[in-house]
This record gives sequence, structure tokens and C-alpha cells, in this order.
Amino acid sequence: MFVDLNSDLGESFGSWKMGNDAQILPVVTSANIACGFHAGDPLGILKTLQQAVKLEVSIGAHVSYPDLVGFGRRNMDLSRDELIADVLYQISALDGLAKVAGSKVKYVKPHGALYNTIAKDHVQAEAVIEAIKMYNPELVLVALAGSNLVQQAKASGLNVVSEAFADRAYNSDGSLVSRRLDGAVLHDADFVAKRVVSMLEKGGVESIDGIFTPIQADTICLHGDTDGALQMSVAIKAELLKHNIQIRPFCE
Amino acid sequence: MFVDLNSDLGESFGSWKMGNDAQILPVVTSANIACGFHAGDPLGILKTLQQAVKLEVSIGAHVSYPDLVGFGRRNMDLSRDELIADVLYQISALDGLAKVAGSKVKYVKPHGALYNTIAKDHVQAEAVIEAIKMYNPELVLVALAGSNLVQQAKASGLNVVSEAFADRAYNSDGSLVSRRLDGAVLHDADFVAKRVVSMLEKGGVESIDGIFTPIQADTICLHGDTDGALQMSVAIKAELLKHNIQIRPFCE
Amino acid sequence: MFVDLNSDLGESFGSWKMGNDAQILPVVTSANIACGFHAGDPLGILKTLQQAVKLEVSIGAHVSYPDLVGFGRRNMDLSRDELIADVLYQISALDGLAKVAGSKVKYVKPHGALYNTIAKDHVQAEAVIEAIKMYNPELVLVALAGSNLVQQAKASGLNVVSEAFADRAYNSDGSLVSRRLDGAVLHDADFVAKRVVSMLEKGGVESIDGIFTPIQADTICLHGDTDGALQMSVAIKAELLKHNIQIRPFCE
Amino acid sequence: MFVDLNSDLGESFGSWKMGNDAQILPVVTSANIACGFHAGDPLGILKTLQQAVKLEVSIGAHVSYPDLVGFGRRNMDLSRDELIADVLYQISALDGLAKVAGSKVKYVKPHGALYNTIAKDHVQAEAVIEAIKMYNPELVLVALAGSNLVQQAKASGLNVVSEAFADRAYNSDGSLVSRRLDGAVLHDADFVAKRVVSMLEKGGVESIDGIFTPIQADTICLHGDTDGALQMSVAIKAELLKHNIQIRPFCE
Repeated sequence: MFVDLNSDLGESFGSWKMGNDAQILPVVTSANIACGFHAGDPLGILKTLQQAVKLEVSIGAHVSYPDLVGFGRRNMDLSRDELIADVLYQISALDGLAKVAGSKVKYVKPHGALYNTIAKDHVQAEAVIEAIKMYNPELVLVALAGSNLVQQAKASGLNVVSEAFADRAYNSDGSLVSRRLDGAVLHDADFVAKRVVSMLEKGGVESIDGIFTPIQADTICLHGDTDGALQMSVAIKAELLKHNIQIRPFCE
Repeated sequence: MFVDLNSDLGESFGSWKMGNDAQILPVVTSANIACGFHAGDPLGILKTLQQAVKLEVSIGAHVSYPDLVGFGRRNMDLSRDELIADVLYQISALDGLAKVAGSKVKYVKPHGALYNTIAKDHVQAEAVIEAIKMYNPELVLVALAGSNLVQQAKASGLNVVSEAFADRAYNSDGSLVSRRLDGAVLHDADFVAKRVVSMLEKGGVESIDGIFTPIQADTICLHGDTDGALQMSVAIKAELLKHNIQIRPFCE
Repeated sequence: MFVDLNSDLGESFGSWKMGNDAQILPVVTSANIACGFHAGDPLGILKTLQQAVKLEVSIGAHVSYPDLVGFGRRNMDLSRDELIADVLYQISALDGLAKVAGSKVKYVKPHGALYNTIAKDHVQAEAVIEAIKMYNPELVLVALAGSNLVQQAKASGLNVVSEAFADRAYNSDGSLVSRRLDGAVLHDADFVAKRVVSMLEKGGVESIDGIFTPIQADTICLHGDTDGALQMSVAIKAELLKHNIQIRPFCE
Repeated sequence: MFVDLNSDLGESFGSWKMGNDAQILPVVTSANIACGFHAGDPLGILKTLQQAVKLEVSIGAHVSYPDLVGFGRRNMDLSRDELIADVLYQISALDGLAKVAGSKVKYVKPHGALYNTIAKDHVQAEAVIEAIKMYNPELVLVALAGSNLVQQAKASGLNVVSEAFADRAYNSDGSLVSRRLDGAVLHDADFVAKRVVSMLEKGGVESIDGIFTPIQADTICLHGDTDGALQMSVAIKAELLKHNIQIRPFCE
């Protein structure tokens, strides 16, 4: 039994710092690195890539809508051609920098509003899938576990892995409980760590209304931007190892 | 005897159009394509790349300071690390899009203020040279003919070609007459066409103050953004062919 | 009988030119001037303002979503607070520059996707109305004739004027025919000019499916960005004057 | 005897936080608020303005070169007209938001590279002075104590106040010791607090090479972005009050 641990990295921008790349990188096996559209300036991205390569962490392009001030968290109705070109530009920029750092982009994880939109919007999803296939059909797409996107990407011939969220509550249909609702985010590191192990062993979690809900998780999203988040990530990793669940990148 | 003809392309941005890529592309052998920092949105860049590939025009990265509103025409004192990362990001983005279009980046021509600055500023020049070598030491750098940059790039082991300007007057030290001075820009297409041929055949031009000035030109910069510019470019090409000067990309 | 003629102006950005401010300004009575979010750099905005003041054209803030590369034509789901602040920032910037040019902002006309969205989305509309009232409750809002926004703005106590489009076909419910459909845009200057007069005299137009459709038009949107558009605008103005319809700004 | 205490505020940008506006605002009498060109999104700016108004802190426009990724810390050679328009746009935007928050812009303090450049570059300084006078000749300019700018602004008829830095070492010609040199930044809160009092009482400080150097300080720049910076600011204020030096805004 094995799983991948991923985290969003390289999300500083110029003088503004975000996250704690140096501390979360040793915990994860896959690094979703910002490409400059929601976060990430070239120098910051390059430094994060160099750290990731040193630690042999797998590199993914964390592509986004072009919205720095909104951090890529606001829906935008880009045309198909615009979205394809925007995704290609971002993967390209990151892949070139990754090459310089001694590695390459192995997967794509859309960010923020784009991630949520393509989980259910077939039109934008098709554009993202098309862009990835145009760039390199060997790349893997990270999609929300249980979402339509998983099937859509598979049907299009793209490699796709399913992602679960350690610290988020699920509805009984497998979707995430909206952050606007109470109980959407879990804060107890021990509880979350045990829940991740259980999710992998049982193939699902108990939903917010108490029903067992299947969740197929190839990779777990972790955070390192606060002390609490980092501790939770460390606790999850420890619990996984304790239960002999191997931690390794999904791209090997 | 042979020469390359290059032009700046892909300089539209979203709804704003600039230049006339479709008409100047058939005239030139090398296309300096904007990378998004002074001009060029992903979709517009991709379309220009596709046209260039169709016409078998050689592709170069037209890298710039990050200054959309100033169109890369204003000096900026980036640190060495910032400049290296900015150049790497731009070459990477263009190279990935070029790959999708069926080709690749073969050379780098810095744009605007960056072009002028590194012609004489060793520090920023070194950063640009370093970035190119980090990305791909086979890439060629296009530098102002007669500038310090030509020697600096050669000394660093980089391939470099010298660029002359068809429609610009020269000082007797080989530098360009400032655009702020009368007579800096030449407007007579026939005169300019004959002057280009003469420059190549004699290895120099008459300076603004009437002195023969050696100019070693591997590539000539042409424009296609106005009807007049396009006609001048066509006239130059015709005159070159009439004098049996072969026109071919410097990267082959 | 009277009407206002408005046009979108100041939509260049740095080296990229758009529209023909100098030629359309003498035709119109109200200038919707870009504020920097979809178009307009500070220097370009200031120059357009100075021309508008010289010709005694009334000045409006053409506020937009923050999307330069998309020219404000793509929907964005800003939060209420973000939208209020973005609108306030834009009106403020334009009003200060207008003061320097010798006038002031008298009205607000949202641009592109924001214009279309608030014509029917009560939530974003409320944010725009709130921002205008916070800045200066005397400002007038320009809204799509017949849209929900007209009533919503009136109900909130804001001054609102209704805008019709000279060169656009209407559906029988008073909405504009989508640009994606044939016949959506009218190209015959004479026909369009007579139609505008008829619209004002009869209080409506014949819809695309041949039904008389009431359109209450306080201001007509004109274009000057192409020779054809400019000629049509001149033709409309001439036809209005020929029919003794007075042309004057709605803000006096 | 009295002095003003100022600090740079509103320097977050979207999801990226910088500084600690809520904690430093109660310490200072003047708030230099970012205007969106080096930092500050509209909503963040508005919130900072509302806090400043609540605490009756005087509001200044912290205008900058347009360089978000460089945080306004890199020189840019804008043309005179570009710089005038950029400064006008920023003051205007902030003044309008300040009006909505219940106050108005009372002074202008250029930021970062612009601050340092105009301290000695007469050409860019003239553009900034001209912009301020165009907008409102009653506005006060904050300039580096002892710089050419102080005299240039006075000669042009502009109100100007001189700014000293509590935690920076001075050269014996009154200029700041470059941050690149050892000893440029002072870290001992008690020492710095006593030094500020001494600077005001004696009209100068001991330079880095031990020579008494006259510094005329109308306002002292404080920081609140780290715990240490905030504690130093609080210590300075306490020491000033202990020595009966009144703390009040220079704009009253």
C-alpha cells in the first residue's frame, strides 16, 4: 500500500512571502509549483525548484487563471483557446526552469478556481486536458477524487491521479464541504492523521453527515504555511509510516 | 555571400494589436517573438509561432524587462539573480510554446531597453549570457554589431551574431545615432535597400558625419508594422537577391 | 426632444493604440474613459481627459474587472467587497486626473463583462451601485436600456440613464442579440442612422424577429475605432440634427 | 519641541500580507499608504485607510514606480510625462478612497527607488514636484533630510518636510549608509530610541565614522513589520514622550 503527499509551493511573489517551502518540502513527495499566473515570480520559482530537485521531490505545474491580485481564486470565463494557451505557457515556463534546476515537470495540478471549475465544467476541463496533451501526453493530471474530471481525463487518454484532502470534510456524494460551512476544515492533527490512514485502508471516509463515502486517493494534499499546518503534515506522514503505508511520488 | 533578415513579432497583447505578423513573416528568415514581459499574451504568441513554423522561419526569444506599460523600453536595475531568472522564464515559456507549434527556440534577442543596456553594461550583459548558457549553451545571442556585447559573449563561449539596422543612421564609432536626433531614422526605401547591400558588400556604411564606418552584419533588423515599413522590408529583400546575396537564417 | 451620444475612450495602453479619441470626441457629448483596469495607462488617460475637457465633453468612469489581457471582457466572480473597492479605486483615479484636466467625473458606465453581468446579476449590481453611492451619490449610472439594473439602481436612489446601441439588433424582449448570431451587428450607416431617429421618435425598434420592441434611450453608444464606425457615428449625429433631436449630455 | 512619526502601510497585495498595520497605526501620527503601484490592492488600501481614519492618523500617498514584482525597489527611467501621470494617478486613487473612508490625502512620500532617486536626480524630482502641485499645491512632500530634494521642492514653492530614519546609520555628509555595508542598520531598540531623542535635541547624529552630522528631522520613519521593529517603534515613542517631545502630525 502506498500514497503520494503533495503540497502547493513557490507561492511567494517578489517581496511577498507565502508558505514555508523549505520546511514542507522534506515532508512531501510531489511539489505543485506556482507558474507566475496566481503566484510565483521567476526567481522565487527557480529557488523552489532547486530545493525540490535537491530533495528529489517530484515537480508539478500548479497552473492557474491569470489573476495575481485574486490569487487565482476567482472564476474567469476564458475562451477555450485562451485557456489552452495560458496552460501551455505556464507548463512551458515551469518546465524550462525545472530543466535548469536539473529536473522536469512530471504532472499538472490546476490551482484554486480553475481546479474547482474543471472538476465539474466539461468545457474548461477539455481545454486543460487538451493543453496537457499538446505539451506532453506523458504528463499526469491531478484531479479531485470522485469528480467528473477523473473520468473525463481518463476517457481522453490522459494519465490522471485522484487527490484527497486530509483536513477537509466530505459530503456523502464525495464532494468537499464548502469552506463557508461550519466543520468544513478539520484542525486536530491526530484526528486528521488517523483519518488519512483510515481513508486509504478503507477506501473512504465518514462524510459530514455520518455516512461512509468512498474516496479513492492516490495523493493527499498537505499544507505547510503555518506552524499548525506543518505539524499536521508531519503527523500525517508519521501515521502513514506507522501503518506501513509507503509514501512515494505517483510519478515514477 | 549571405545574410539573415529578422523582425520583432508577436507584439500584440490581448485586444491590442501591434505589427503585422502575417505580412512580414514571409519576408524574414528569423522571427524575434515576444515572450510576455514587454508584449505578447500566450494565445497571440502561440498563433505567431504557428505562422512562423509554417513558413519555416527561425524562432528567437525576444526577452525583455518586465514592463508591459512601458513596452520594455525603460531601463530597470534588476539584480543579477532577478535578470537571470526573468530571462530563463521567458526563454522557457517561448520554447515550450514553440515545441507545441512544431519547432524550438534557436536564438535570443533581447528587446528594447535591455538590448541597449547590455550592449554596453557588462554586469547585466553577464546575467543575460549566463541565463542563455544555463538554458541551452547552443542558443545564439543576437547583439548590436560593434558593441562590447559581441566580444563579451564570444569570450564567454556563447555563439553570437551581429545585428545591423537597415533604416538607422550610424555614428562614426559604429553606434546608432540617437532617435532623438534629426536624421537618425532613414525613410527612403530605395536608398535604404541600396545601403544594406553596400553595407554587406563593403563591410560598413557611411556614418552620419560622412566617414566610412565598419559594420559587420550577420542579420538585418526589418520592420513590418506600417505599410511603409513593410514596403521598405520588401525592397531590401529584393535588392539583396538582385545582388546575389543569399538570404538565410543564421541558425541552421 | 434630445439625446446624449457616448463613446468608449482612453482605451490605449502604453505603446498599444486603440480607438481614435481625437476623431470621435467631437461627435459625442459623453466620454466613457478607461480607468486602468481593462485599458488605459495614466498618461494616456490624462491626454484623453484633456481632449475631452477642451471639447466640453462630459466625463464618465468606464470601470471594469481587473483584466488587462482579457480587456475586461471575461466574467470574474469578485467578492462584494473586492468589487466595491475596485470600482471606488477606478472612479477615484479618474476623478483626480479629471480634476487636473479641469473637470470631474459625472457618471459611471461599467465596461464589457461587468456591464453585461450587472445588467442581470443583482449581487454584483448592488456592489457597483453601493460603490458609486459611497463615492458620490450625485453620480449617474449608465445602464443597458430595459435591463433589471435600471430598476435596481432607481430603487436604490441612484440616478440612472438608459443606454441603447445604434448598431446592434434587439430581441423582442429588449435584450441585445448575441454577437455570436448572424445579424447581431448592423453595418449600413444610413440604415442605422434612420433607425436611431426612429427609436427615439417611436420609443422603440423593430426586433430581429420583426416585432416592435420598446427601448427607452437616454444615451446612444457610438464607436470611432474604425473608419466605418466613425462614419456611422457622424451619420447618426447628422440624422438626429436633421430631425431636430437635440444632442446634449445627460449630465448637465 | 515636537516631531511626527510615520510608517509605510497598506503594503499587502491580495492574499499576500505585509506589515502589521493594526499594530503600528496606534504608534504613528502619519501613515504612508501604498497606492497600488508597488503594493496595495484596492480593498486592502481601503481597509488600511479606514483604520487610519479611526485612529486620526494623517494620510499620505506612498507613490511608486509601477513595479509590483520588484516592490518599487528598482530604478526605472520613466519619461517626465509618464512619471507625472503615474504620480497623479496614484494620489488620485488614494485620495478618492480616503474621501470614502472619511479623510483625505495630506502629503506625498515617494517609495523605495523613487524616493532614493529623486533625493538626488533633479529631473525625476521635478516631475514628482510638478505632479503634486498639479494635483493640490497644499500637499506636503516628505523628502530625505539633507537631500537636494528638500531645497528643490522649497524653491518650487512646495511645502516639504524632512525625514530621518531612526534605525539607519548616517555618513558624515548626511546621507544614509548603504544597506549593503556593515552597520547600516541599527538593531538595539534602546540605543535607537535614545539616538532619536538626541537627534532632535542636538539637531544631528554621530555619523558612522564618528563625526557629528546635522540632521534636521520633521518626521521619523518607523517600522512595524516584525515584532522587533514594532517594539523599537514603541520604545522610540516612549523615549520621546519621556523627554517631553510632543508627537504630532506635520500636517495639521
